[in-house]
Amino acid sequence: MTGPVPPFIQELQQWITLQNQNLVKWETSGAGTLLERQVLGSFHRLFYQAPAAFYGQYIQDPSSSLGNITSGGTLSNLTAISYALSRKLQDAGATFHEAGLMKSLQDTGYTRAVVMGTAHCHYSLQKVMRLLGLGTRAFVALDADELSGAAGSQILDAKIRHLQAEGVLVIALVGVAGTTEAGRIDPLEMMAEVAARHQVHFHVDAAFGGAFLFSDQYASKLKGISDADSITLCGHKQLYLPMGTSLCLFKSPGLAKQIEINSYYQARKGSVDLGKYTIEGSRPFSALLFHGALQVIGKEGYAAMVDSNYARTLLFSEKIRSNSHFQLYRHPDLNIVLYRYVPAALREKALAGRLNDAERTLLNERNIYLQQEQFRRRESFVSYTEMPDETGKRHVWLRSVLMNPDTTAQHLEEILQEQLTIMHASEDIKTYKSKEYGNQ
Amino acid sequence: MTGPVPPFIQELQQWITLQNQNLVKWETSGAGTLLERQVLGSFHRLFYQAPAAFYGQYIQDPSSSLGNITSGGTLSNLTAISYALSRKLQDAGATFHEAGLMKSLQDTGYTRAVVMGTAHCHYSLQKVMRLLGLGTRAFVALDADELSGAAGSQILDAKIRHLQAEGVLVIALVGVAGTTEAGRIDPLEMMAEVAARHQVHFHVDAAFGGAFLFSDQYASKLKGISDADSITLCGHKQLYLPMGTSLCLFKSPGLAKQIEINSYYQARKGSVDLGKYTIEGSRPFSALLFHGALQVIGKEGYAAMVDSNYARTLLFSEKIRSNSHFQLYRHPDLNIVLYRYVPAALREKALAGRLNDAERTLLNERNIYLQQEQFRRRESFVSYTEMPDETGKRHVWLRSVLMNPDTTAQHLEEILQEQLTIMHASEDIKTYKSKEYGNQ
Repeated sequence: MTGPVPPFIQELQQWITLQNQNLVKWETSGAGTLLERQVLGSFHRLFYQAPAAFYGQYIQDPSSSLGNITSGGTLSNLTAISYALSRKLQDAGATFHEAGLMKSLQDTGYTRAVVMGTAHCHYSLQKVMRLLGLGTRAFVALDADELSGAAGSQILDAKIRHLQAEGVLVIALVGVAGTTEAGRIDPLEMMAEVAARHQVHFHVDAAFGGAFLFSDQYASKLKGISDADSITLCGHKQLYLPMGTSLCLFKSPGLAKQIEINSYYQARKGSVDLGKYTIEGSRPFSALLFHGALQVIGKEGYAAMVDSNYARTLLFSEKIRSNSHFQLYRHPDLNIVLYRYVPAALREKALAGRLNDAERTLLNERNIYLQQEQFRRRESFVSYTEMPDETGKRHVWLRSVLMNPDTTAQHLEEILQEQLTIMHASEDIKTYKSKEYGNQ
Repeated sequence: MTGPVPPFIQELQQWITLQNQNLVKWETSGAGTLLERQVLGSFHRLFYQAPAAFYGQYIQDPSSSLGNITSGGTLSNLTAISYALSRKLQDAGATFHEAGLMKSLQDTGYTRAVVMGTAHCHYSLQKVMRLLGLGTRAFVALDADELSGAAGSQILDAKIRHLQAEGVLVIALVGVAGTTEAGRIDPLEMMAEVAARHQVHFHVDAAFGGAFLFSDQYASKLKGISDADSITLCGHKQLYLPMGTSLCLFKSPGLAKQIEINSYYQARKGSVDLGKYTIEGSRPFSALLFHGALQVIGKEGYAAMVDSNYARTLLFSEKIRSNSHFQLYRHPDLNIVLYRYVPAALREKALAGRLNDAERTLLNERNIYLQQEQFRRRESFVSYTEMPDETGKRHVWLRSVLMNPDTTAQHLEEILQEQLTIMHASEDIKTYKSKEYGNQ
């Protein structure tokens, strides 16, 4: 998942380090503060397409913010959910920032506060729930298949209505635009509509899949994202920026105002300092990387990369589907392929979903052995994850993220061949029976 | 406050960008994960000096962590306080991570939870209180002068005892090893002792002043820091690393275990992945910068820089003290000098602390004018802040952080001369009476 960084981005990063500007305040960032606001405006326009007058008014308006640049996706998700929580409780009349969660819920008469989202939400949401003091049990996990089905809208509607009737504050609904595990996309348009109807903040975690918006061919996969109240997008994924660059966009310029924090030596009241609106304090000038990328690669360049990565993904999944030693998890929504090695004897049962527990365990062990052996050989690399089947039992799947523009069909073929070589050798010498990788 | 970055650090940063490793898991960082643990061990040893056997056991032990590398001081403080909160509530029998703050306090019978610290704690603590759902009112602000006085220990002891008797959970006591505003240090040794007596987590925010520990001559300023349960140290201050590099050290290797979070595709249970213990997910290989700095500059090199910066600070404060147009705020504890311009007519009253409100307002306006005009001229730069006097009224003070090794006595003289030139010109043409900077 660690992507290549284009040479001009490396040069910009070098300049950032040399200048070492601090975006917390204007005095230590100079033009950086103005450029960061410009970059946030550009991304806001790409995702929300508000009229020109909107950007004329808000991009450089120090009393508002169109988003935050953060050092990672977890922080972007934390920003979104914590700002939504602030807004909901303050709108309900609580002095949340001063009084805290317990007192604010008591004062506003809510029994508890929850966040809703599909069960496959990124695990950073668990961290967010815990940090905010809501607790992981206050994450109402929705069944992704159910939600994507014909009755999804009614089910979601009923769940929110039921919770609200019980006196529960539904803070936010989180839609995933591409799970990091499997690239799966939630029904964003429907979720946006239901959330709006019940005045629930709609956050889209597009950390992984947001770049598909650049593609005219595939932007429709993210339909509904422009109705999100906030959006997470990670630069270190398909934007090819270095680790530690993420955005949280706010649909409403006033959202960040809710959490304004001031001090006497920076982020002063009325100042243009961006530190007023960010969870982080001192921050590097990562905005320049986003700016450079938009100027040099641009929407068209990203569209070409997204299209070519997805074409390669479809090619790889086709190779897997047509190879009798492998099983594809599902048709890839984005540029992630999940698949597994299946010995010939189990192929038919695996494809039909009729494996018994012993066979499932055997497949899991063999695929973990395969992944670790391939990692050890250092010729190529795929990661792995575990996905539940309909009975909740976990199956190991190899996980490949297609985002290197230099990857060819030949490379993809070689990866599968290396995996078969490893497994055939292991079946000869029975190494997979060794204690290290578990017994059959 | 934005410091110069040494050339070898710029080169390491370039390599980090080129390699683009992701420290969230071993598979995407390789040796990076092992090196990050090594770096945390080195800093732990510098601050805590545990026996060699301790480091032999814990540095590479995947079921523990000696600290986190974070992208900033706010995140380090958030890490420390949130981990302390988790530990206190879980030790008291609550299932805090799952049940959240309100339910956990109710279940354990606490009326509320507070964090204590001096009133001059960094404003990131306000963000932390709000994010964790405790609320800013749950920060019990102690009077720094009172705490530093002879009766400090008894006062602190009585306050904690009183809160605990009322059923309040005192989560943590925060000591500041160098306020970012003025470089002031809290009485750490006494605070550590009182905190330990009442089983309160003692966190030291040494973001600004931690580097003084490297100096044999001045390490005693931080006496007591080795008794802290956690310590924040920022690389982008006197360690001369780029923006976005901070540490949170944990005295106990088991603290991070409290908050372990796993997923199926990374940060797996039992793995060596550092993502199990961090608030952030994907993270750059900043550990290499800390490692390089320790190898190339080393404890001795940092000691020389700290000593020379502090010598320069004392020289600058002496120049201010002996110049009849300026007033020094107080003798600098660390490498920050606060001072202000005072017209000759007000000098005597200012030094004696007998300014009336109109005079105070006039001085505030003139010093803000001075700071902004100097910033506008782009010849040199000092920032400003506002510090309360004993009646709580805010006074504007110019703020200078001495950390550029190339700064000479001549430069310091020139800064004061430029300031006098600005103020003399303004008094001639009365520009400080303009609307922009406020009226007399």
